[in-house]
Amino acid sequence: MQDSDIAKSSQVTRLIDLALEEDIGSGDITTSACISPEQLGSAIILAREPLKVAGLAVCGEVFARVDKNLRYFACVKDGDFVEPGQKIAVVEGRVFSLLAAERTALNFLQRLCGIATHVDAFVSAMGSSRARLVDTRKTTPGWRVLEKYAVRVGGAGNHRFGLYDGVLIKDNHIAACDHIAHAVQKVRQKVHHLLKIEVEVEDLAQLKQALEAGADVIMLDNMSEDQMKKAVEINAGKALLEVSGGVTQKSIARLASLGVDIISAGALTHSARSVDISMDIIS
Amino acid sequence: MQDSDIAKSSQVTRLIDLALEEDIGSGDITTSACISPEQLGSAIILAREPLKVAGLAVCGEVFARVDKNLRYFACVKDGDFVEPGQKIAVVEGRVFSLLAAERTALNFLQRLCGIATHVDAFVSAMGSSRARLVDTRKTTPGWRVLEKYAVRVGGAGNHRFGLYDGVLIKDNHIAACDHIAHAVQKVRQKVHHLLKIEVEVEDLAQLKQALEAGADVIMLDNMSEDQMKKAVEINAGKALLEVSGGVTQKSIARLASLGVDIISAGALTHSARSVDISMDIIS
Amino acid sequence: MQDSDIAKSSQVTRLIDLALEEDIGSGDITTSACISPEQLGSAIILAREPLKVAGLAVCGEVFARVDKNLRYFACVKDGDFVEPGQKIAVVEGRVFSLLAAERTALNFLQRLCGIATHVDAFVSAMGSSRARLVDTRKTTPGWRVLEKYAVRVGGAGNHRFGLYDGVLIKDNHIAACDHIAHAVQKVRQKVHHLLKIEVEVEDLAQLKQALEAGADVIMLDNMSEDQMKKAVEINAGKALLEVSGGVTQKSIARLASLGVDIISAGALTHSARSVDISMDIIS
Amino acid sequence: MQDSDIAKSSQVTRLIDLALEEDIGSGDITTSACISPEQLGSAIILAREPLKVAGLAVCGEVFARVDKNLRYFACVKDGDFVEPGQKIAVVEGRVFSLLAAERTALNFLQRLCGIATHVDAFVSAMGSSRARLVDTRKTTPGWRVLEKYAVRVGGAGNHRFGLYDGVLIKDNHIAACDHIAHAVQKVRQKVHHLLKIEVEVEDLAQLKQALEAGADVIMLDNMSEDQMKKAVEINAGKALLEVSGGVTQKSIARLASLGVDIISAGALTHSARSVDISMDIIS
Amino acid sequence: MQDSDIAKSSQVTRLIDLALEEDIGSGDITTSACISPEQLGSAIILAREPLKVAGLAVCGEVFARVDKNLRYFACVKDGDFVEPGQKIAVVEGRVFSLLAAERTALNFLQRLCGIATHVDAFVSAMGSSRARLVDTRKTTPGWRVLEKYAVRVGGAGNHRFGLYDGVLIKDNHIAACDHIAHAVQKVRQKVHHLLKIEVEVEDLAQLKQALEAGADVIMLDNMSEDQMKKAVEINAGKALLEVSGGVTQKSIARLASLGVDIISAGALTHSARSVDISMDIIS
Amino acid sequence: MQDSDIAKSSQVTRLIDLALEEDIGSGDITTSACISPEQLGSAIILAREPLKVAGLAVCGEVFARVDKNLRYFACVKDGDFVEPGQKIAVVEGRVFSLLAAERTALNFLQRLCGIATHVDAFVSAMGSSRARLVDTRKTTPGWRVLEKYAVRVGGAGNHRFGLYDGVLIKDNHIAACDHIAHAVQKVRQKVHHLLKIEVEVEDLAQLKQALEAGADVIMLDNMSEDQMKKAVEINAGKALLEVSGGVTQKSIARLASLGVDIISAGALTHSARSVDISMDIIS
Repeated sequence: MQDSDIAKSSQVTRLIDLALEEDIGSGDITTSACISPEQLGSAIILAREPLKVAGLAVCGEVFARVDKNLRYFACVKDGDFVEPGQKIAVVEGRVFSLLAAERTALNFLQRLCGIATHVDAFVSAMGSSRARLVDTRKTTPGWRVLEKYAVRVGGAGNHRFGLYDGVLIKDNHIAACDHIAHAVQKVRQKVHHLLKIEVEVEDLAQLKQALEAGADVIMLDNMSEDQMKKAVEINAGKALLEVSGGVTQKSIARLASLGVDIISAGALTHSARSVDISMDIIS
Repeated sequence: MQDSDIAKSSQVTRLIDLALEEDIGSGDITTSACISPEQLGSAIILAREPLKVAGLAVCGEVFARVDKNLRYFACVKDGDFVEPGQKIAVVEGRVFSLLAAERTALNFLQRLCGIATHVDAFVSAMGSSRARLVDTRKTTPGWRVLEKYAVRVGGAGNHRFGLYDGVLIKDNHIAACDHIAHAVQKVRQKVHHLLKIEVEVEDLAQLKQALEAGADVIMLDNMSEDQMKKAVEINAGKALLEVSGGVTQKSIARLASLGVDIISAGALTHSARSVDISMDIIS
Repeated sequence: MQDSDIAKSSQVTRLIDLALEEDIGSGDITTSACISPEQLGSAIILAREPLKVAGLAVCGEVFARVDKNLRYFACVKDGDFVEPGQKIAVVEGRVFSLLAAERTALNFLQRLCGIATHVDAFVSAMGSSRARLVDTRKTTPGWRVLEKYAVRVGGAGNHRFGLYDGVLIKDNHIAACDHIAHAVQKVRQKVHHLLKIEVEVEDLAQLKQALEAGADVIMLDNMSEDQMKKAVEINAGKALLEVSGGVTQKSIARLASLGVDIISAGALTHSARSVDISMDIIS
Repeated sequence: MQDSDIAKSSQVTRLIDLALEEDIGSGDITTSACISPEQLGSAIILAREPLKVAGLAVCGEVFARVDKNLRYFACVKDGDFVEPGQKIAVVEGRVFSLLAAERTALNFLQRLCGIATHVDAFVSAMGSSRARLVDTRKTTPGWRVLEKYAVRVGGAGNHRFGLYDGVLIKDNHIAACDHIAHAVQKVRQKVHHLLKIEVEVEDLAQLKQALEAGADVIMLDNMSEDQMKKAVEINAGKALLEVSGGVTQKSIARLASLGVDIISAGALTHSARSVDISMDIIS
Repeated sequence: MQDSDIAKSSQVTRLIDLALEEDIGSGDITTSACISPEQLGSAIILAREPLKVAGLAVCGEVFARVDKNLRYFACVKDGDFVEPGQKIAVVEGRVFSLLAAERTALNFLQRLCGIATHVDAFVSAMGSSRARLVDTRKTTPGWRVLEKYAVRVGGAGNHRFGLYDGVLIKDNHIAACDHIAHAVQKVRQKVHHLLKIEVEVEDLAQLKQALEAGADVIMLDNMSEDQMKKAVEINAGKALLEVSGGVTQKSIARLASLGVDIISAGALTHSARSVDISMDIIS
Repeated sequence: MQDSDIAKSSQVTRLIDLALEEDIGSGDITTSACISPEQLGSAIILAREPLKVAGLAVCGEVFARVDKNLRYFACVKDGDFVEPGQKIAVVEGRVFSLLAAERTALNFLQRLCGIATHVDAFVSAMGSSRARLVDTRKTTPGWRVLEKYAVRVGGAGNHRFGLYDGVLIKDNHIAACDHIAHAVQKVRQKVHHLLKIEVEVEDLAQLKQALEAGADVIMLDNMSEDQMKKAVEINAGKALLEVSGGVTQKSIARLASLGVDIISAGALTHSARSVDISMDIIS
């Protein structure tokens, strides 16, 4: 869907509802007792460290689901860098609702900004290269579309979204079919004609088999640098080549220089930490 | 609920279903094409780095929701430390189902083990102390009960679960009531008699007001070490004292030595990375 | 949550939807056949006996879920007493929608006003006393937040909302731990620090054990008046004392005079009858 | 559906889930801390006052939804009378699960037995008569199928289940169509041919119009005894005659003697109180 | 419900959501890449063959669920005949949303117009007759209320909506009760007094038994024309007579001339094909 | 997913539940009154016309959701041809449950067998050809995975499942990007590397542009036979060529002989009628 519509998708709405239920449950007992239901105010959402913004829409959607009469204004755009103390968004309306939504809204924003900031660091480390850095399916369960969005905001690309929209033949599949050629053929017959076929290979012999079988994309799994160089030569531009496994901020520049087309890194999503963002009520 | 029942709770079941839908969607097209629906096999789940185990039950539940005929055997217990290459669990049944569940099951396990391992490091850094280390509400949206469970496995305790099961009067509440005493009184009248009342204070003057108002617990927010020492003296054991804000693995030992009762740290959950765990099919 | 927000909470919304489905199902076949979809009108909701009003918001929410273009105006406030024939609310819009929503809206209102009126009678019977009258968990399944709200409107207070937001150690728990002290200790270690601990005791020996174990609240279960008086003496203000079991409109004044802090009565919710309220269409 | 299947119907399952969520929420914190997850035991459900049993299946279903390994044995059948102290059911399994389900299971059972007992008193008061006593749509929202079932167990019959399975033309419908004959005709054209048509009339003139219009059933709304007698004469067996409005245990015998076919009473459901039933754990 | 409300009923909303999820899933990847989220435009929905319109509201509801800011204008009314090239509706708003909703909206409209057009042909073939043509329960699972609505638009009537709102005693029921009289009697006792009782009979002997048992409606199942004529004579207007089984556009005129009251035909819904309707974007 | 798992997928389960709710609703009132809940029996599902079987698993799943103790045995396999009177499946268990599930189970089976039989006729009409016949997204809303499965059983292939798993650039997309080359480039940058890109063209000039832009698949939309022949020459095997628009059983053999790779036909799903299948209870 359009990036602007992700926050309203059924998948994300269900996650927001789950999150609000687990935090608010049968009610915010402190605020109910202290704050009049009619009291109005504004809340400012502020960065507390340098960060790349991602998730403004989902943050706003949390406020909207708590109280559809809150008014939410983003002060920056997804993809912008902000400095500590800089305003990210303003929310106006019932103070009761602002306080009930605060923690959940910030928890979403902190994690998505954290990923975008983390990915941005990888992209910077990569330098200029024709290789494309992409994520993997190692995302936080329940968060796939959000985290893949934050990866794009951070400057990298996406690999397939799930098991349903891309073919990747792995060792277990090959073993079950006896041979790479057989596996590729079986898949080609069954899947629709708009899908490419990727094969994961562990050595150069398998690479050759995959090329002969007509694989559209080939993933070089945990190969040495030497092997990868030879793989690029053997492939000679026939299939797209993807490198995967243990990609770090340190190793990425070197990998990017080897001539492969795609570098995929689980760390983009599974090793990002939340960044520090806070909310202040002003009356 | 009992720790053993968390994985089957409605909250977690909904999260697992969300996760399976986002990964499997309309189907695992690669495996459907390559693997016969009748083929049986076993999968071994292995640690790829040293880690403290947490989440065995939810990992098993993911397999069960994909295919209720899979048989899942944990080889260790939550709370055990395992070494790289050590078996964590074995799953048996249709290879098709094992492959469809693999990524989602591992994504849950990697994150919960990651938190338990991270919390364990905090607890070790804390040394022996009468203070209790607890988490906060800065958890991944949708994951509250799971992450709070992993914190307990890691050796720390929990703060309140949400806005519904504990009273914490913050600056915004106090501002709305004009005075700490007034805020405490209003809450005391409204909430049921099994709830204690915690007040967040920013300086020693507020601490004294909170004590006079009869607060049961007082949170010292971002105070200097000196202020915290004085706070312990002023309190003289009347209320429970909690320290919060910017707690790190480095600072925790010192904080623990100041005589406060509770140290709460958002980093326990929001800054943990996933650990490396893999699944191999053996026939 | 704020009282004004209960009617829109996810729990209540699900109950309203359940109620509308069971009443309307595949459609109001009589009205569909007789009434033009465009016909507009007004409906007046009237008391048919003296009652204390509770549930205006949930009544309005039923109309809103049937047809969001209906306009609902409350003529009184929750907590007001009304006389037979007095207007409670007016609803305007499509007659078709008014008739489809009528029975469900009234069924909610009748029961909640019934509880508020019933509780009010208990409170009046209690006379002036420092004891606090509270409800129990003996509520109509699916109606917990609504009935506890009606209890508050009726003038009494709430006990814990469920098993998740308050600790009450009963005979079965004590039996499983061998001793009151042991049970209290185990609970103290596990639950978070914002929760008090209540222990149910059956005689004065148990009362003393509970006090020694540091129970914050003690429930005197089905004790004689003599025992209760002695319990108040023994306690000497240390713990909060709660009386429970067979509390009636007759016995409550006497119980209130014994010096205990809290009286809990299941009858507030489980023995209230619906009061008589009707709806008339005027064109 | 079959009476034996009501407890497993989607409507009732949703109500049970709502009820368990509102009571257990994020967990039974007392029992989790005190009771080992492996501890097994038995629970006995006992009557504490004389009552007519109804709802054994839904009571069992509550236990089953909390823990599908609990074994539930009814000691009596729905419709049986039991005395104080008599065993109603036994449940065996994990003590933890028994305690978590206890309150919700009892709350269902108490209310349904309360209705059956209450209805039974009405039926007894009615004496022998060819008139049929039936309920109305004045049921507790969310509880329609359960309460209508308890009415049948209590010895009375059901009126239509909702707006979807029976035609009842009321004053508002007549007003909108100008004339009874017109209203009956419009409905006859639109609804399917397996539905009878009932018309509510306020006086004998309307009764005659309804008869001429071919109404299959006629409801005499709040008529005097004299009017009702004349109505029986005028009708002369042509339509079924139903009496409604303010039926009480006192008035019912007299109404039953007037020669009408059906007496409908909202009090059967909306004025029943819960009866006293308890659960004891035995080890 | 009112025809105008069917598209917003919970049943239909769930079907629309199912349909949108299966078509859009994790997003319209083509449109997301090509079309700016802000681009506005209009879409025209056009007939591509002669057809009778049905389903304008549900078609509009699909657009509304994709994007509540789309504006949908019907150019004709349900029941109108349109020619190829004629405008059926116009939708305005974000092009992105128009394209995402297009296929699902058209798939609904094509099928419902297809049924109305198909039913209209049956009704025309029937000629003038006092018999009423009705549908059956042989509808597309999930589509019951929509297809029964399209049948009404097409000019026929409805039989019962489901197993819950009409009694039809079939051979299996009779077999289980030993005798038609016994079956009718058991049903009369159990169901409420606003329901008629229909009995399915296979020969004239059974017809007589059904009449004696007081059946309100009798279905002649797969009888020869001769038998049907005799059945009309035997019945002599006592019960309503319904003919069912293998009714086709060819046979219907003849059946209609036999003097029966009702003709039911599964073909109205289960043998209709979708008609051709398209959507064009104009900028 | 595996064909054997489709019937248990979340999408299909929701459709089955919707279908059972709309047919059974508040209960099968006829059967409840006539048939004892304990009565056991067998049901035979029989073909009433020649047909190709599809949907045995979903038919069984309907019975399972009504009563998990029913035992369902398929007598044939999906893809088998059966003759009138031939047994398709047998179901054993409570007669009450068999009758409640009957209509819904048959309605699913009738439609899916209808599609498979219809597709089989298209495939036979096509003769031997290297072209692949595939379906479109013109499926019954809510039925996508089931109907696409029946198409495969019928002997044809599938096109993309939805908007999420395949790229098809149509006229509206091209218009928004000014030029085919620009549209292809934008999509290539955004979508992941396992997806091919299909472009819909209306004439040979567009075909050449699409080829230059590097389209992987090109759809010839409503071209004349002459144009299609020239298109095959121009393409010279570079892209896959797909023909679409108004494909019928008559025209298909000719289309298949033109040398294109893929023929897509909405008629496979949107113009199939249900076939005749019945269920008999035998005791």
